[in-house]
This record gives sequence, C-alpha cells and structure tokens, in this order.
Amino acid sequence: MQRYILTLRCPDQPGIVHALAAGVAQAKGNILESAQFSDPGTGVFTIRVCLETPEADTENLRDELTLRLARFDPVLTVRPEEQRRRVLLMVSKFDHCLVDLLYRWDLGELPVDIPLIVSNHPDLEPVAKRYGIPFVHLPVTRATKPEAEAELLRLVARHQVDFVVLARYMQVLSDDLCRRLSGRIINIHHSFLPGFKGAKPYHQAHDRGVKLIGATAHFVTADLDEGPIIEQDVVRVGHRHTAPELVAIGRDVERIVLARAVRLHAEDRVVLTGSRTVVFA
Amino acid sequence: MQRYILTLRCPDQPGIVHALAAGVAQAKGNILESAQFSDPGTGVFTIRVCLETPEADTENLRDELTLRLARFDPVLTVRPEEQRRRVLLMVSKFDHCLVDLLYRWDLGELPVDIPLIVSNHPDLEPVAKRYGIPFVHLPVTRATKPEAEAELLRLVARHQVDFVVLARYMQVLSDDLCRRLSGRIINIHHSFLPGFKGAKPYHQAHDRGVKLIGATAHFVTADLDEGPIIEQDVVRVGHRHTAPELVAIGRDVERIVLARAVRLHAEDRVVLTGSRTVVFA
Amino acid sequence: MQRYILTLRCPDQPGIVHALAAGVAQAKGNILESAQFSDPGTGVFTIRVCLETPEADTENLRDELTLRLARFDPVLTVRPEEQRRRVLLMVSKFDHCLVDLLYRWDLGELPVDIPLIVSNHPDLEPVAKRYGIPFVHLPVTRATKPEAEAELLRLVARHQVDFVVLARYMQVLSDDLCRRLSGRIINIHHSFLPGFKGAKPYHQAHDRGVKLIGATAHFVTADLDEGPIIEQDVVRVGHRHTAPELVAIGRDVERIVLARAVRLHAEDRVVLTGSRTVVFA
Amino acid sequence: MQRYILTLRCPDQPGIVHALAAGVAQAKGNILESAQFSDPGTGVFTIRVCLETPEADTENLRDELTLRLARFDPVLTVRPEEQRRRVLLMVSKFDHCLVDLLYRWDLGELPVDIPLIVSNHPDLEPVAKRYGIPFVHLPVTRATKPEAEAELLRLVARHQVDFVVLARYMQVLSDDLCRRLSGRIINIHHSFLPGFKGAKPYHQAHDRGVKLIGATAHFVTADLDEGPIIEQDVVRVGHRHTAPELVAIGRDVERIVLARAVRLHAEDRVVLTGSRTVVFA
Repeated sequence: MQRYILTLRCPDQPGIVHALAAGVAQAKGNILESAQFSDPGTGVFTIRVCLETPEADTENLRDELTLRLARFDPVLTVRPEEQRRRVLLMVSKFDHCLVDLLYRWDLGELPVDIPLIVSNHPDLEPVAKRYGIPFVHLPVTRATKPEAEAELLRLVARHQVDFVVLARYMQVLSDDLCRRLSGRIINIHHSFLPGFKGAKPYHQAHDRGVKLIGATAHFVTADLDEGPIIEQDVVRVGHRHTAPELVAIGRDVERIVLARAVRLHAEDRVVLTGSRTVVFA
Repeated sequence: MQRYILTLRCPDQPGIVHALAAGVAQAKGNILESAQFSDPGTGVFTIRVCLETPEADTENLRDELTLRLARFDPVLTVRPEEQRRRVLLMVSKFDHCLVDLLYRWDLGELPVDIPLIVSNHPDLEPVAKRYGIPFVHLPVTRATKPEAEAELLRLVARHQVDFVVLARYMQVLSDDLCRRLSGRIINIHHSFLPGFKGAKPYHQAHDRGVKLIGATAHFVTADLDEGPIIEQDVVRVGHRHTAPELVAIGRDVERIVLARAVRLHAEDRVVLTGSRTVVFA
Repeated sequence: MQRYILTLRCPDQPGIVHALAAGVAQAKGNILESAQFSDPGTGVFTIRVCLETPEADTENLRDELTLRLARFDPVLTVRPEEQRRRVLLMVSKFDHCLVDLLYRWDLGELPVDIPLIVSNHPDLEPVAKRYGIPFVHLPVTRATKPEAEAELLRLVARHQVDFVVLARYMQVLSDDLCRRLSGRIINIHHSFLPGFKGAKPYHQAHDRGVKLIGATAHFVTADLDEGPIIEQDVVRVGHRHTAPELVAIGRDVERIVLARAVRLHAEDRVVLTGSRTVVFA
Repeated sequence: MQRYILTLRCPDQPGIVHALAAGVAQAKGNILESAQFSDPGTGVFTIRVCLETPEADTENLRDELTLRLARFDPVLTVRPEEQRRRVLLMVSKFDHCLVDLLYRWDLGELPVDIPLIVSNHPDLEPVAKRYGIPFVHLPVTRATKPEAEAELLRLVARHQVDFVVLARYMQVLSDDLCRRLSGRIINIHHSFLPGFKGAKPYHQAHDRGVKLIGATAHFVTADLDEGPIIEQDVVRVGHRHTAPELVAIGRDVERIVLARAVRLHAEDRVVLTGSRTVVFA
C-alpha cells in the first residue's frame, strides 16, 4: 500500500468532499486522517488528506483526482508521503536555528531533504560540512544583490527546491524575489509579531518592559514582517533580564517556532489563504 | 439553510468518507468543516463534520446517512447545530466551577441547555436561583446512596440530559452508575493526572515541591481518576506558595479546563475511543 | 507579633540594605521574605520586605526606618500586612473583569478593600449590589468630562483610595488625570502590547492571523497603551476562530491577567521605575 | 570591583540579614540583587545575594561573613561570580541533552566549566571531542558497578567537580553514591513527575491519553524519581501523536528543562531544603 498526502484549495461550494472521496474510492484508497476548513471570511475551501491506496503511480492518482475535481478550479497537491519536500536553508552568521534544524533533520524529526545551504557569509560552512550538506557562499552587496538573487533562483530551480527557509538570514529580499517565490519562503522573526517589527526586537522589548518575549514564523512577502503567520510562541521574562539575556532566552523560542513551522509545512499542513494561513496541526 | 453537526465512530475500512459524502451530497449539503482520525492503535475511525443543507428534517437526514453507512456498523450522531446539548450540573459546596460555567453559559460562550443543577448540599441553591435554573438538593449518605443515584438517573431521563458535569462534586459515584452513564459524565480533577490522584492533591503537590500544578477534565469510569482524559492544563507555582495558595491558584486552572472540556463536548468535538479520547479542537 | 510589608525605592548606593536591616533589628524584627533588585540601566535600587516584629505601632516603625534611611533619599512604604490596599474599580458595560475581581475578592483571593465602584454607565450596578459595594454612576460626555474627572478625584481622596483599577473602562482619561494619579491606575488592555494598540484589538488580531492572543495589565500614562507593563499573558488560537470567538477567548486572559496584576500591586510587589516595572512575584 | 554570589541557609531567627548586611558593609560591598525566603513549614531561612565590593580576596570575605554569621549555624557559600561552577556531565546513548548543553555552554549561555564527560557507552565521544572536552568511557555492569562508581567519585574529587548532571544517563545510581553526592547530582526525568515514574514514560503517557507531556529536572536521591524538583515544564500533545512522536516532542522539553535547571544551579539560585527546593529564579 502507498501512502499519499493530498491538499486542495479552491472556492467553497457543495460537492468538493464528495468528488474527492469518489476519486479516493475509485483508487481503492482509505482516508486515514483528514482535516477541512472553509473560511467564512474569504469563502476559501481547504483540505488536507492522508490516505492509503494500492495505486502506486502518483501521476495516475493525480490525474484521476484532477479530472474529478476540475470543475472546482482547485489548487491540488498530491505527494507520496515518503517523497520528502526539498528545502533550501539560508543563513548568515547566527547558527542557532541552523544547528537546531540540522540536528532535528539528522535525527529524523524533520521529514525533508536539504539539498543545499546558502549563506551571504562563509562562517557556517563547517556546520553544513558536519552534516554533509553542500554549502554555497553567495555574498550580497547593494551592487551584487540582483545577480545574487538571480543565482538563488537558479539554485532553487536546479535543486527542485519546494520551499526556502530563512534561518536567521539577515538580508532583506527584493520585492521581485518575494513575488517569484511567493508562499515558498518561511522566515523566523525574533519577536511576537506584530509587536517589535524591524531591527533589534529584543532591545525594543527590553525598553518596553514586556513580561513575555516571542518569535514568529511567517511566509515572506514584499511587506517586511507582514507576511502570513504560520506559528508563534512566547516565553516569560522578568525585570532582571538584560537585553542580551533576552537575546539568549529568545534563541530557544526562535528555534522551536521555526522548527515547528518547517515541520508543519513539510507535512503539507499549512495552507495559505490570502494574508492568513490555515494550519491543520 | 440548516446547519448540522455530525459525528461518526466505527471500525476503520475504506469507503466511509465516500459513503458519508455521498449522503451529504444527496441532501444537497455543503461540508463547512470536518476533521477525521483513524487510530492506528485501535483501528477506530472517527469523524466530526459540520455541514449546511436545505434539508430541514433531522430524521430524514439521519435516516439517509444511516442507510448509506449501515454496513460500517457506525455510532452516528446527527444534531442541528442550534439544538443544544442538555447538561446536568452536579456540585457540592465549592462554587468556583459552577459560577464560572453559569457565567459563560449566560454570556453565550457555552452552547448548552442546563435544565437542572443537582447537589448533595443545599449551599449553592442561591447561585442556581440567580440564573433561574432549578436546583435539586439530593443528600447522599452511605445508606441513601443507592436511592439517591436512582433518583439521579430518573432526573437524567426525565430532563433528557445528554451529559452530566461534576463541577467539583465531592461524592464518589457507584460503579453501577458509572456504567449506566458511561461516556456521559465529565469530572474535573484538581491535579495534573496521573499525578496526585485521590484526596487533597494540592497538599500532595505542595509536599512534593512541584513547580507546576494542573487540572484534568475526564470522563468518569468506575476506576476513580482513571477515566479518559478530555483536557488538561497547568500553571506555574513556586516555593513561596503554601498549600492553601495552591488551592486558590488551582481554582483558575480547574474552571478553565472544565469549561473547555464542557464546550468541546457540547460541540461534539470529543469522541471516546476506549481509554483515550479523540478531540477535534 | 505584627507583620509588615515594606517597599523602598531610591538611587542605588552601598549601605541601603545594611541601614534597613539595622532598623529592622532595632525593632526586634525578623525578615520573613525579601527581594531586591538594582537596575543597572537606571541605577534605581528597589526592595520589598515582609517582616515580623513586636513593634505594633506603624508610625514608630516608619519613623525609625525613615530616620535610618533618610540619607538615601528613599520612597518608602510601610504597611501592616492586614491593612489592605483600598481599590476603586471603574467599569463601563462589559462585566467579565468586574465579576471576576469581585468573585476573587469575596473568596479572599484578593487582599484589598473595595470602597467603591464607579461607572460611566448604570448597567453594572446590580453586580455591585450583589456584593454590597457602593456604586457611583458618573456619566462622561465630552462636555462633562472635566467635571466627571474632578468628581473622580474627590472620590479617590474621600475614600482614601490607594489605586484605581480600570476593569474594561472604555473612556480615555485626560492627560491631567493620568498625571495626578500617576502610578496609581492599572488598566487592562485586550491585546499583547505593543501589538494591536487602540480599538478592536481582537479584530486586528483576526485580520493579521496571529496564532496567540493576549492581554496586558499596565499602569496608565498620558500615552495611551504605552504605560509600564505589570503583567501579560497569551492563549493559543487558530484559523477556525472568528473575531467574536477571539473576543470570548480573550475574556479569560483579560480577567486572569488583570486579577494577577491587581493582586501583585495589592501586595506591594510592583515597583515602578521609569517606563518599566520591577515585579517581585 | 569584585562581584560575588553568596548563599546562606540556616534555621530562621531574627538578625540574620542584619548580620549579613553588616559583613557586606564592613567589606564596603554593595548588594546588587538579593532574594530571601523563610519556609514557614520547615523554619529554614535561605538567601541568595549578588554583591560588589573592592575586597578581592574571597577567603577574607568568607572569613569575615562566617565570623559574623557563626551563631546562626549557617551553610554559607561565597563565590566570585566569574569563578564558574565545575560540572561533570554523564550520558549514555541519547545525545539530545548533551548536544544542547554543550551548544549553550559554547555560546556562553551556561556559566559553567565542564572538565569531563563520563559515559557508560563510547557512542558520544565524538560530540565531546567536537568541543574539546575529555571523555571517559566508564562501562557499568552489575559486577563492575561498585568499582565504576568508586572511579566516578575519584573523578569528581580529582576534577573538583561541584555538581554532576545526568543528561539522560540510563543507569540507576547506587544508594551509597546518591548519599555521598547528596544535593550534587541533577537528573532529567522524561515525564512530568510525579506522573509516569520509571521506564518508558512517553509510552505510559500515550496509553493514558494525556493532553500534555512534560519533563522534570530534580536532585537525585536514593528514592528513584523522588528527589527534590528543581524545574518542570510541559508541552501540549494530541490524539494523533504516536508514542514515538511523544518521544520526539518530549526531547524539546527535556533539553530546555535540564538546561534551565543547570543554569539555575550554576548561578547558585537553587537551595535544597529537605525534600523541596527554593529557586530564586
């Protein structure tokens, strides 16, 4: 038996689940887990299904389902569960998110393939080497940014990357790149958005005297720190913590929130609907 | 359009979702939200569906679905969303859970009807009166317990009670009553089960020096404090808190956990599968 | 033996604890609990002490300590533990914070006296009556606001109010009032500040698609929603929650955060140091 | 100026703080942060002080304070802040806690020295090597256990180890060793104690259907999993998580709870009072 993960997004109307279930039944499939949500605000229908079937040919299954669902104008993904999403990691100098993601990946916690790590600095190459992952140093200056981003797009294409993860990558991406990889870049911002956007959020948090600090994993859009949120969490802090201590405490939240977001997206549990996400956690 | 909540539990096999979706389609229904889970451990299929249909007759819909699903040997519930579950509350002398549930109910947060409050003490009758809910004082001694429980069962039947909530009811129910109302009684235990079963859990927690205390809402079974867990939560405490202060801090967790459990069950989001629950939160 | 709570704030320099301890020793006192913090950023020394002494005359103790500490230019408070802080509650139409505070107060969880409840609407008078607390209806229009605030100040003086709690009071206070009662007004804002300042924060949160919502208790300053934070907390939400459901879920966080802040301040555990607070929790 | 951390534990009585402050004043010291607690249950006085003084000789300061405090029969520690606690790590085959502690240590988050890593298996030697820390393989069988423990005690003495951290060390220590290193061994148990003591706690948790899983850092005593608790935390889980997934989710809580406990103890913030701890967090 082959296990597939299937997601579908389309304008809501009656009959979608029936058509989908008919397609699954036709393939002698059994639905093991499914979650569906129709957003009353946007009228968008979303579903994620995990199913088992003797049908071993993904194309056949996809064609069959596409045919039955065509009239709903769906965005449909069909993926054999063991065919992992391909993720390109981008970093700068801070290593805590990268180290954490690679540790989890190595242990089997993160069901992804990592064909490549890209950085605007050479510092973290040894970390990549330790795990046997190719590392590309792609420096970015104001002058070279267009070429660097073009090269990034080539790497994404060449390595058949499903999505990019900015694991504390400290360069702002151009609007054009954000558009081209729309819905395919996850960033970790080191604050509980929408509080403390922009630079040095922990210092902002310290000055403001907040009692909790947080981190936010979100899709990247041209609007900095305004992309659709995937996951957030917070941790309690107190008056005795200095800004540098907030930075240290925050590292824990950052890496946990980012790892959760990457895992959720790798398992096709995150569906983007406009400026918000549906997360079938 | 009529909105229905539908739950179904049966041994897992292919075709259940298809048959269900066909029934919904037949009724010109649209599925707004659904969640499904098949437990690999027990082989139990569970689903909860919220749907809209022009079919205004619940019996018709239930018959149609029962017919289509019969071969799966299902436990099926079909409920118009606005037809609220009927809940009987039981209390003793502590009022914090009762007061909290009634406040939420009055505000519209808890979509239930409360035909009756039953207590083994007369103390909380004024609280019931404030909300215009009939209050039955049903004293329990070792000698009168069988008769008191028989009366409780009559009240459950007469008031068409869907489920009973023990809102810090301090009497242990007989095994026989637990069996008769199996899966229909929710209790709040004032500890993070399985830690600190039995009496005075906060004093046990204080002696043990724990750094978090909790509360657990669970279905009642003949095994005291061993029933299937619906919801749990904890709160941080420290060395300076005395046992009575833990009691006070714990009240907050108790009432929040119980209110969540009651709401989840009132919305048919809790499915009992053996000694565990599936919660479609 | 008499138990006192003592707080002290002054510019940091060597010898403060020694002078204080000498004063306590002179009064044959025993320090049961103390916490001290010197903020390296502001150079402000803060301490809270709970002590026991045979000295039954508060004035004597205060004079003795004032004398010994005078050279440090301190802000000193000395309070017999059983002499409760006097708190004036202000509300509008939402009752969840008021009901919660009064329930806790009645149960002995909140060690305060509540001489008065003031509201710009008559709606919640029955709640006040239930607990036997005088209720003053003080309507506020643009024209009457100066007079209403003058009356409020008279009530604060007449009832020897230590601090004011805005339990979802929906009027913005004038800058002048904020200054006059500086450090003596606690507000609950229904968002995790600094996110979602201003009106309808839950609707803002829904539009932004956040995965946690929160509440913030803070001292009121002329800068709306910018006052020093006392306590914050959050709760997890998801894509299926509508804005009105966020409002309902948020009520729980609001009342818990406000109750904690009021209790902390009532126990003299909150010390204001510029735009931040030291909280000896 | 030299900065010291000072802790003191003794039977409670008046005058302790005064005597201590006098000693600090004599040394021209300034107290930067202090926290004190007298447990009404046990009558034990505990205090932690961070102070600055021109006195650069630790022995002098310790002698001066010992003299002034002698009549209180205190357990007193005086440590220059930059003189780090020396910690011996023990591991078996699971590396998540070790990797996490070393990463934090390397980054400067954990203010300790790690002279040695000891394991009953050779597997994790490469991890030790990566950080340049000596690794001792000390196999333990029923027959060699006494000799292995004797060797451990020699290593503790030779390396002037302050405390031992069992970072998922899978051997039960003998009662004798527990007694000899009483209050000097921290263990991480992979459940929210007192729930799920003993082996395979995540599988126990899965069978019981809990909605939160946790981890507990505690001092080791002869009573397995019954030692005084230092820190605990939990994380939410659901019906769809299998026991192996709980193991993976639990790793995060384990490493965070253990790292917090080690840091708290390394900063002398944990005082053992009988079967409970005072934690000046």
